[in-house]
Amino acid sequence: MSERSCLSVILAAGEGTRMKSATPKVLHRIAGLEMLAHVVRALDTAGAGDKALVVGHGAEAVQSASAAFAPGIECFIQGERLGTGHAVLAARAAIARGYDDVLVTFGDTPLIAPEALGAMRAGLASGADVVVMGFRTESPSGYGRLILDGERLVAIREDKDCSEEERRITFCNGGAMAISGARALELLDTVGNDNAKGEYYLTDIVGIASQKGLDVRAIEADFESALGINNRAELAGAEAIWQERRRKAIMLDGVTMIAPETVFLSHDTVIGRDTLLEPNVFFGPGVVLGENVTILTSCHLEGARVGDGVSVGPFARLRPGADIMDGAKIGNFVEVKKTTVEPGAKIPHLSYVGDARVGAKANLGAGTITCNYDGFSKHFTDIGPGAFIGTNSSLVAPLKIGAGAYVASGSVITDSVPEDALAFGRARQSTRQGLGKRLRDRLAAIKAAKS
Amino acid sequence: MSERSCLSVILAAGEGTRMKSATPKVLHRIAGLEMLAHVVRALDTAGAGDKALVVGHGAEAVQSASAAFAPGIECFIQGERLGTGHAVLAARAAIARGYDDVLVTFGDTPLIAPEALGAMRAGLASGADVVVMGFRTESPSGYGRLILDGERLVAIREDKDCSEEERRITFCNGGAMAISGARALELLDTVGNDNAKGEYYLTDIVGIASQKGLDVRAIEADFESALGINNRAELAGAEAIWQERRRKAIMLDGVTMIAPETVFLSHDTVIGRDTLLEPNVFFGPGVVLGENVTILTSCHLEGARVGDGVSVGPFARLRPGADIMDGAKIGNFVEVKKTTVEPGAKIPHLSYVGDARVGAKANLGAGTITCNYDGFSKHFTDIGPGAFIGTNSSLVAPLKIGAGAYVASGSVITDSVPEDALAFGRARQSTRQGLGKRLRDRLAAIKAAKS
Amino acid sequence: MSERSCLSVILAAGEGTRMKSATPKVLHRIAGLEMLAHVVRALDTAGAGDKALVVGHGAEAVQSASAAFAPGIECFIQGERLGTGHAVLAARAAIARGYDDVLVTFGDTPLIAPEALGAMRAGLASGADVVVMGFRTESPSGYGRLILDGERLVAIREDKDCSEEERRITFCNGGAMAISGARALELLDTVGNDNAKGEYYLTDIVGIASQKGLDVRAIEADFESALGINNRAELAGAEAIWQERRRKAIMLDGVTMIAPETVFLSHDTVIGRDTLLEPNVFFGPGVVLGENVTILTSCHLEGARVGDGVSVGPFARLRPGADIMDGAKIGNFVEVKKTTVEPGAKIPHLSYVGDARVGAKANLGAGTITCNYDGFSKHFTDIGPGAFIGTNSSLVAPLKIGAGAYVASGSVITDSVPEDALAFGRARQSTRQGLGKRLRDRLAAIKAAKS
Repeated sequence: MSERSCLSVILAAGEGTRMKSATPKVLHRIAGLEMLAHVVRALDTAGAGDKALVVGHGAEAVQSASAAFAPGIECFIQGERLGTGHAVLAARAAIARGYDDVLVTFGDTPLIAPEALGAMRAGLASGADVVVMGFRTESPSGYGRLILDGERLVAIREDKDCSEEERRITFCNGGAMAISGARALELLDTVGNDNAKGEYYLTDIVGIASQKGLDVRAIEADFESALGINNRAELAGAEAIWQERRRKAIMLDGVTMIAPETVFLSHDTVIGRDTLLEPNVFFGPGVVLGENVTILTSCHLEGARVGDGVSVGPFARLRPGADIMDGAKIGNFVEVKKTTVEPGAKIPHLSYVGDARVGAKANLGAGTITCNYDGFSKHFTDIGPGAFIGTNSSLVAPLKIGAGAYVASGSVITDSVPEDALAFGRARQSTRQGLGKRLRDRLAAIKAAKS
Repeated sequence: MSERSCLSVILAAGEGTRMKSATPKVLHRIAGLEMLAHVVRALDTAGAGDKALVVGHGAEAVQSASAAFAPGIECFIQGERLGTGHAVLAARAAIARGYDDVLVTFGDTPLIAPEALGAMRAGLASGADVVVMGFRTESPSGYGRLILDGERLVAIREDKDCSEEERRITFCNGGAMAISGARALELLDTVGNDNAKGEYYLTDIVGIASQKGLDVRAIEADFESALGINNRAELAGAEAIWQERRRKAIMLDGVTMIAPETVFLSHDTVIGRDTLLEPNVFFGPGVVLGENVTILTSCHLEGARVGDGVSVGPFARLRPGADIMDGAKIGNFVEVKKTTVEPGAKIPHLSYVGDARVGAKANLGAGTITCNYDGFSKHFTDIGPGAFIGTNSSLVAPLKIGAGAYVASGSVITDSVPEDALAFGRARQSTRQGLGKRLRDRLAAIKAAKS
Repeated sequence: MSERSCLSVILAAGEGTRMKSATPKVLHRIAGLEMLAHVVRALDTAGAGDKALVVGHGAEAVQSASAAFAPGIECFIQGERLGTGHAVLAARAAIARGYDDVLVTFGDTPLIAPEALGAMRAGLASGADVVVMGFRTESPSGYGRLILDGERLVAIREDKDCSEEERRITFCNGGAMAISGARALELLDTVGNDNAKGEYYLTDIVGIASQKGLDVRAIEADFESALGINNRAELAGAEAIWQERRRKAIMLDGVTMIAPETVFLSHDTVIGRDTLLEPNVFFGPGVVLGENVTILTSCHLEGARVGDGVSVGPFARLRPGADIMDGAKIGNFVEVKKTTVEPGAKIPHLSYVGDARVGAKANLGAGTITCNYDGFSKHFTDIGPGAFIGTNSSLVAPLKIGAGAYVASGSVITDSVPEDALAFGRARQSTRQGLGKRLRDRLAAIKAAKS
């Protein structure tokens, strides 16, 4: 299809009142990615050319967000909102440049399939003037029905205008539409607003084109392609569909999930073969897991790389910049941020390690904490290979612990420790016979006196 | 309906053997609230007047629990358990006071809808003598069928007594019943026990009243209103229905849940608009969240207030008395109890903060712990605005850290620290060249010797 | 049935390519137990005698794993894989020993019901020569249909070979088969490979035996008994069925699960009455919970015993060898390993306790950590009854803290502490007026200079 030029118009001007949100509807996220970005991705996958974005409500926010995930997208403002036909015409200047295909999609249909977009364009390529994306449903009530005459689409009939017979039609209007670029403006300009709401409906193009004797068709997409999101419950519903599909694809690729329904993937999660995910693993964006990784229950990963054979969790959090190399181990109640954990190193329990390197086979005792922040700046901690850090130690950055060095339990380390050295930063123990009991008696007396 | 007086009789005497529990059945909880309390709430919402509670099995426990959620409820003991008709008559003294309406409900139907209760009373108000709560189901097998003659309810036929034709009736007896106060005792006293089990069945009232030519009707409630709980699997089923309804209502009010099925709400959870809940958030009773709050995965909240724009989690626990003010941040592996965290303060990692104030914009390093308990009493820690607490510090209460004070990492602070002061409570570091290696060699030798 | 001898042949030679795994298919786990071990258990429950395991792909791994869960199992290698009939004959030497019954099952059908196996053997006992395990489904497409003539099974017809009428048969071949030991080799040796794939099909036995006028029958098993696992999505599906059944059984036994769908049981989990599980509890193998236990959300338990009235979590991890005795409390962000926590002892927050005893009613402050590992060996920490350990303390093992001893907050304890003694291992606090502000100003200046 690449030989045909294409303009994809994405309608994203609606207010989305039912979202009850200060965030414009199309910027709400599914799998960590804005709904609008999902549509853009589907268009890119389908090779759908230049993109025109029609914005209205929250225009500035939508425009600036879209710059991130759709560089080069052209934005058009729909000042008044007078219907979908009017919205498409906000992009008149782009359409007028004369593309072979004009593909109209909606920014709130995050599950639209690239295959459906491709099928619509294929329709134009084979001679159609207008191609409507349809879907089939056993419960068509409420949807506009696609009225066909053989292969030809004659009209889109709103539910309330359907005859008894038409009401039984299960092939419905899914919203998206492909229009021959040569006909687009002519058809759009013919749409009128002589209806109850006084709006210009994009769907009227079908009747208009049909009456002109043009070639109007419908393709069949899956139901999800047509799923428009109007409130948070529907948003959650679309998220669930997305997650279920992606989990299944990842499992079929050789990943074990004990309870796939409790694993939440990001739009870009990558997981290697023979990796095991226990229940309740959450992936934020930017995570790549290697092979033979074990993620125990209740982990939260974001922006992290995890090498082969690594074990993580339960109850671990890998934050952006965590790079856990082959065979390393991150245990429970451990947070790692902007840190390289080299092969075979272990952070088994109750640690915060940030802005650091943990050398190969180093072992960090429970309660080890890198003091990377002084209230103003972040500093780096470099722990050499084979170093052993005793429990409950504070490593005050900037700091370098040499290879094979040994830090005694409960130390506060403020100065760098050379290779193979032993560092203490703690007081000697002193023990007083009987004083424990005396203290206890005194505390008990105080409590008794109070009450 | 308020002009008519009403007595609500709640039957809660059953043993609930199949719960296999030392706790009386009606005290098992849904959304953190006893089933019986759910029924009481529905009655209160429907304005259903005075309440009489018929107890039997576990009478004392039920009575004392009900005092908490239904102050003023009158308890009646059903000594022997001889059927539902007999149970209602345990409240004879209350019924005899002469209410306009007597409304009979069951303590193990936690999802009973106030609308159904209202409809039953409306029936009495419009002239009915008896109104039965019915429900429709495609699988009526096992339920008593409502035998209607036009609008009139003629009989409730037990499943096993149904004719072939009656078996196809899908309108079934939902248990609850409204009886004209003027007729109630007369009807109840007429019920006999000439049946296989020798019990007095409340449902017999329908036939009796019908034969007397009284006006007997049925209203249609939803299936859930009639859902009686008899074992823990059914309890979990009712919890699931409750949660699904409440999640949806909260989402439609403008809250994002990435995976609503993993969010567990309490009966009284309040969540502000544009708040985001990641998966696996558990709400115990008494939580109020503001707007634009972010709760990351795997949090447990109970009795906590959370202001606008706060970020909590992942893996955080807010316990009763946690008051997290606007823009504050509670990070991972952090527990907060009976503590005010003032605006913009941060407790980002691995901390226990209890019985404390954390002043505005204060920053607590990872591993900060308030030692609020001496084994006998709890003491208060007051951390001033802008204070900075170094990592792995122990703050031994009672204690006051002044505004802008700085506590060095790894300190044990036992004496109050003035404003803008710097406090240390740790030893100096000492480092010994080569001793790390020597220690390692010795430990390796010990291990080798053992094995 | 015990008077009849039985050989159970388990076919486990398939490559399982669609698992995309380095682990042989039958060793993938459900509820923490290998699929093959589930089949072995079902056979044991049904008293199905000696076991012959036919291995091929990953033979060594399967053999060595099976030794653990099926001691005494006899392994046979199927060198080439030429079909199921050929696979069974790999165990010819065993079959030839002359058992009354030969029961053929598949190692990748982990949900096969002992009842179905029993029914098949009962068929042989009552005179049948061959008994096929069938199941009914509304969607038989793709399955081999069981062609019956009255009670007699005439043939198993592959889906693609079915007539229009046969296609409507909903009774399908479930794979497992029981063969009279006296006939087994004769029948198996008659199976040919004159078919498209050139393989020897076990199912051909049905037609052969039928033509010989032998008594061939089918029994009806549940659908799950016939469920063969071929990829990880199917594995997850079988896990879900297993979990749902087991959760329900446990709930009906008197355990409350607020959200059963978030509780993941192991094949051997035991839970006492009136125990409450909040959402997201994960059980690894070897856990026994007493009565009236409360497990708060997000806990991970494995190889642990938990006594009556214990409270665990939220966010706790009990590892193998954790023995939490009656009335003890394990709080949030706590990990316990190989440790006895005696009655009434408390480890409420942020602790790692490994290789230890915590005496009755001892109290461990937040941040208490046992330093059980020196990089080479593990050492024991013995904390006496009623001891009180201050927050953020490191207990360097081997160590004995006497009964009633008191360890001050922030201490590093390296020497044993006698009964009732008070031990310190920390520096005194020193406070410097105004230095906090000076430090802050300096850090701010450094930051400003950098940027």
